[in-house]
Amino acid sequence: MSPKRTNPPRILITNDDGIHAPGIMALYRAMRPLGEVHIVAPVVEKSGAAHAITMTDPLKVTRVDREDGFSGFAITGTPSDCVKLAIGGLLKFTPDLVVSGINQGDNSATNAIYSGTVAGAREGALMGAPAIAFSLASFRYRDFTLSQKIATLVAERVLREGLPEDALLNVNIPPVEPADLQGIKMASMGKSRYEDFFEERFNPQKQPYFWLQGRKITLDEDPRTDDLVVNSGYVAITPLQVDQTHYGMMDRFGDWDWPLGE
Amino acid sequence: MSPKRTNPPRILITNDDGIHAPGIMALYRAMRPLGEVHIVAPVVEKSGAAHAITMTDPLKVTRVDREDGFSGFAITGTPSDCVKLAIGGLLKFTPDLVVSGINQGDNSATNAIYSGTVAGAREGALMGAPAIAFSLASFRYRDFTLSQKIATLVAERVLREGLPEDALLNVNIPPVEPADLQGIKMASMGKSRYEDFFEERFNPQKQPYFWLQGRKITLDEDPRTDDLVVNSGYVAITPLQVDQTHYGMMDRFGDWDWPLGE
Repeated sequence: MSPKRTNPPRILITNDDGIHAPGIMALYRAMRPLGEVHIVAPVVEKSGAAHAITMTDPLKVTRVDREDGFSGFAITGTPSDCVKLAIGGLLKFTPDLVVSGINQGDNSATNAIYSGTVAGAREGALMGAPAIAFSLASFRYRDFTLSQKIATLVAERVLREGLPEDALLNVNIPPVEPADLQGIKMASMGKSRYEDFFEERFNPQKQPYFWLQGRKITLDEDPRTDDLVVNSGYVAITPLQVDQTHYGMMDRFGDWDWPLGE
Repeated sequence: MSPKRTNPPRILITNDDGIHAPGIMALYRAMRPLGEVHIVAPVVEKSGAAHAITMTDPLKVTRVDREDGFSGFAITGTPSDCVKLAIGGLLKFTPDLVVSGINQGDNSATNAIYSGTVAGAREGALMGAPAIAFSLASFRYRDFTLSQKIATLVAERVLREGLPEDALLNVNIPPVEPADLQGIKMASMGKSRYEDFFEERFNPQKQPYFWLQGRKITLDEDPRTDDLVVNSGYVAITPLQVDQTHYGMMDRFGDWDWPLGE
């Protein structure tokens, strides 16, 4: 999709850590020099929301205006809801760019499937806008200085060059200071597996409930996969596509005989 | 992945319409002749849950035993939660097959992204099990006779032949009687777009809330895409892959210069 953008470009920001998370403030600062910024984000944390949309409940909208100039809409839904409601209801236009994040924690390898941050960008792509997800690949390192610089750099290039239809960028940033960054590499989506562990607890009525805990295990050996790129101190830019067809299998299986009229 | 299955095979059933939906009963009937059936499904409808997992709330588990022999666990979570909790907590083994559905409503084209049904199968694939999602491509037609036959047929073949790692099948069944089925075709994931509409209502305190309503618009012309295959009276079997990398774009973008130490 070649850029046919308004001037200044209109940029929609969402995230999955919620509108009050530090990462969305860093993304706001990163986008402000690039265009007209609109913020529509979940009112509370929606980590692990993936591409969920809210169909069985209505959405409530609260205006958030802060003294530092940050202003937007907080939604009782998921990142995908935010993008749909922004484009279909609140803004009534398709932005020139949708950015999501900056997430606290990596969204590389299989995490891209569970991620609400990535889904916010994917929904932007589905709605016809170039879209980028940004994640700081650590749950502990809380300095968004490098992440903010990278967000400006990548968004600037996407605004200039556009993205193919059916594509979005998933950017994972290593938890290092700008001076320690090794570089920026394109990467493929790696493979990882979760060792899930369910912690059983009991409520005051002695009924059990379970907390999901998972440990991510990276299965990759290819150094071009996103987990390994980030772990070696580079920013990983993983281009993702919306089409999930396994084309190799289509040929292998072929059509099936079906005894008509059986 | 070649089948290394127990005898009789152990089959895990989940869905996103909830454990009390008619479609999961049809899937139970379809699987019973094929092996040892285990059911772990959401306690309430989770349509549109996509691949969400529940990280910020615990999961509660209720045993469901019905007089017709249907017995399983109802979970206060999503289809992906169900598969994770089944394999990681309740069953403590990886089943020989994970099946999800039978969903009331199509999960073809872009719907595969929003679908909790498809995500249940995708989570099975991530956990190393062959996995299939089944959907009856109509919200109104409520006769699962053909869907049940198709589920048995496809599951039987997958148990026999296995599936490649990183693959799952997304099966959409047309709303017709068995005698009217045209056949079974492999299909690719089609493209569709949603025209979203938000209906604004007001609560008794006069505060607004919004209901998401979307109209799916099929954008495909290629007759091998799943929406068009189903609309022409065939079962569409769409092989999906877990890897979402846009490999074409990786080459085009290449690595970026990053002024080190800036």
